[in-house]
Amino acid sequence: MNNCLPKNSVGVVTPVKWCYEHDFTFKCGKVLSGFELVYETYGQLNNNRSNAILICHALSGDHHVAGYHSENDKKAGWWDNFIGPGKIIDTNRFFVVCSNNLGGCSGSTGPSSINPATNRHYGLDFPLVTVEDWVKGQALLADYLGIDRWAAVIGGSMGGMQSLRWAIDYPDRLSHALVIAATSRLSTQNIAFNEVARRAIMSDPDFANGDYYDKENKPEQGLMLARMLGHITYLSDDAMRDKFGRELSDGRIKFGYDAEFEVENYLRYQGRKFVDFFDANTYLLMTKALDYFDPAVDADGDLSAVLKDVQAKFFVASFTSDWRFNPSRSREIVKALLDNDKDVSYLEVEAEYGHDGFLMKIPQYMSGMSAYMERIAAEVECG
Amino acid sequence: MNNCLPKNSVGVVTPVKWCYEHDFTFKCGKVLSGFELVYETYGQLNNNRSNAILICHALSGDHHVAGYHSENDKKAGWWDNFIGPGKIIDTNRFFVVCSNNLGGCSGSTGPSSINPATNRHYGLDFPLVTVEDWVKGQALLADYLGIDRWAAVIGGSMGGMQSLRWAIDYPDRLSHALVIAATSRLSTQNIAFNEVARRAIMSDPDFANGDYYDKENKPEQGLMLARMLGHITYLSDDAMRDKFGRELSDGRIKFGYDAEFEVENYLRYQGRKFVDFFDANTYLLMTKALDYFDPAVDADGDLSAVLKDVQAKFFVASFTSDWRFNPSRSREIVKALLDNDKDVSYLEVEAEYGHDGFLMKIPQYMSGMSAYMERIAAEVECG
Repeated sequence: MNNCLPKNSVGVVTPVKWCYEHDFTFKCGKVLSGFELVYETYGQLNNNRSNAILICHALSGDHHVAGYHSENDKKAGWWDNFIGPGKIIDTNRFFVVCSNNLGGCSGSTGPSSINPATNRHYGLDFPLVTVEDWVKGQALLADYLGIDRWAAVIGGSMGGMQSLRWAIDYPDRLSHALVIAATSRLSTQNIAFNEVARRAIMSDPDFANGDYYDKENKPEQGLMLARMLGHITYLSDDAMRDKFGRELSDGRIKFGYDAEFEVENYLRYQGRKFVDFFDANTYLLMTKALDYFDPAVDADGDLSAVLKDVQAKFFVASFTSDWRFNPSRSREIVKALLDNDKDVSYLEVEAEYGHDGFLMKIPQYMSGMSAYMERIAAEVECG
Repeated sequence: MNNCLPKNSVGVVTPVKWCYEHDFTFKCGKVLSGFELVYETYGQLNNNRSNAILICHALSGDHHVAGYHSENDKKAGWWDNFIGPGKIIDTNRFFVVCSNNLGGCSGSTGPSSINPATNRHYGLDFPLVTVEDWVKGQALLADYLGIDRWAAVIGGSMGGMQSLRWAIDYPDRLSHALVIAATSRLSTQNIAFNEVARRAIMSDPDFANGDYYDKENKPEQGLMLARMLGHITYLSDDAMRDKFGRELSDGRIKFGYDAEFEVENYLRYQGRKFVDFFDANTYLLMTKALDYFDPAVDADGDLSAVLKDVQAKFFVASFTSDWRFNPSRSREIVKALLDNDKDVSYLEVEAEYGHDGFLMKIPQYMSGMSAYMERIAAEVECG
């Protein structure tokens, strides 16, 4: 590890590309003749391969969840404050794996990849992916890595949906599922926001029906709008007020359409930053996967029935000011688990940061999760 | 009145155009050498001119608040369920006036009007209008109509801001201010949503810097997005769930980007309908006026201080499921009035419809407002 990097960091990490070379059938029925997943690992897999943890990323996340990509890298992975030696997800004790989801835009096969059948980018021809497909891909990666059973599958937001799906689809392949700031299905309002985001992207003339990769202009305006809108739903009303209030950038009203209020500048900045690293077609895919997610639909809407055979123990956490996936959605999951007498811990974190709270170092959250991770570590080490 | 129209309707009404032929200075400093306001009136002004009520419209509203524009008109004015003979705002007792706001797109001078200085549409050159400017324009209309003092100024949402502003700016020209589902200033989140809506419009290539009136294409995609987004904020999460749930248009997932969930169809329909009658430049103006509104800013944020000299009696109403302007915002207004020992009635309506509740026939709301309007009528009739 380089001296410039924080001591409790996993240090410089290198993404690995894994190539699956067999047919893969998506839930929608489409087939890819193989795919690539890019992933990172931190820590060491123990001898009996029992200390592996899978982290599942959220909409705008990727495989780079901890550490740095070079010694001069200023920006750590997206959950670096939780993952590292001595941290809550302790890489001295666990072997941590995170892959970029299928359909992603950070190295895994996705819409920007070349379709061997046409020799062109997939674009809108990429299969509409589901949470089930992601979990299935991750299970194949686990096979490749020789991990029969995860000590835990952990995810926040869209990542939490993957944890839940893991517990349902592969009941004997994980000991614990950590489902954080998630829901068992999007609300109508959630779908509505996603639809506006997709319309913003698809109505951008530079979207060119998804076939923009070789063109000079990308659908940046549309993707920027989608991100700005998303961002509003990640923060609570109170958090926005505390952060920006009605602060004016120039201290006075200018009576024009440039950004006047600080929050306008902030959103534009977030939007512009996003388009530099995210692909519009992937954004479309991810929001559709979110909309489709609804495991209970397989049992006529009865979530309890769907969770009947899960074997994993659960840790569910929600955040009081999260209006995107509010605590009542997490409580539905907890209730359905309790209906089945499953082992579930539930933490409702009193915090004002909104949905994004799941990424933050909130003391109540940290200590609750830390205690739970200690339990997992003890099981692994006694085990 | 025609037999085809409902009996308790004001019947067929004809908008009137009034032309103000003097210089009008906006708060932003710009000057128009006159303007036109289109308005409608219902009922009869009594002899001592004491029974006049001004209705102020919300963002997408206009002067056509009650009745029909022809005998075959299928669609009544936007608050027809509240205004008419025998209704809550009883046109047998009151003379009701409603004008399209300055900067509007339903006949009053606005961005689509011809700028006499250039002989072209104003477009983005139209002065950025404020709630103060609207109220000032309405006061000039009142002068013209010979109304020294309104029995009441009534408005919901953006209309409620105008009622509040009336009470502050012209304390001796109204007896009652009805401020419904409003706020004394937008929250950071409100401004953020407005900013996304404006970005959607202005980044539409057909927006052409606001100069699209003579072009073949209008910024319909951008305006449609703005409306879809607005619509989500007008409804509560629960109302959306009850109305659409996760209902699929075709009864099944189709794995494509056409509208799949009913709520997607609904939003697209609302968006498309809106672009047929609303002007994008006006949408920009209205959202900026909303953002700017903050009467307390003149007293370093102290709303009580700003309300010190109001003479109007107040009726304030909010809706429990309104997350756009939630009840706590109305309570701030009530509190500031009580700080000054003002006469204020406050009704917090238990209803699940969200912000749009202010347009709906909700029994608790109807009876509370009805009682208040009876009080006003009695005052007027007792002289």
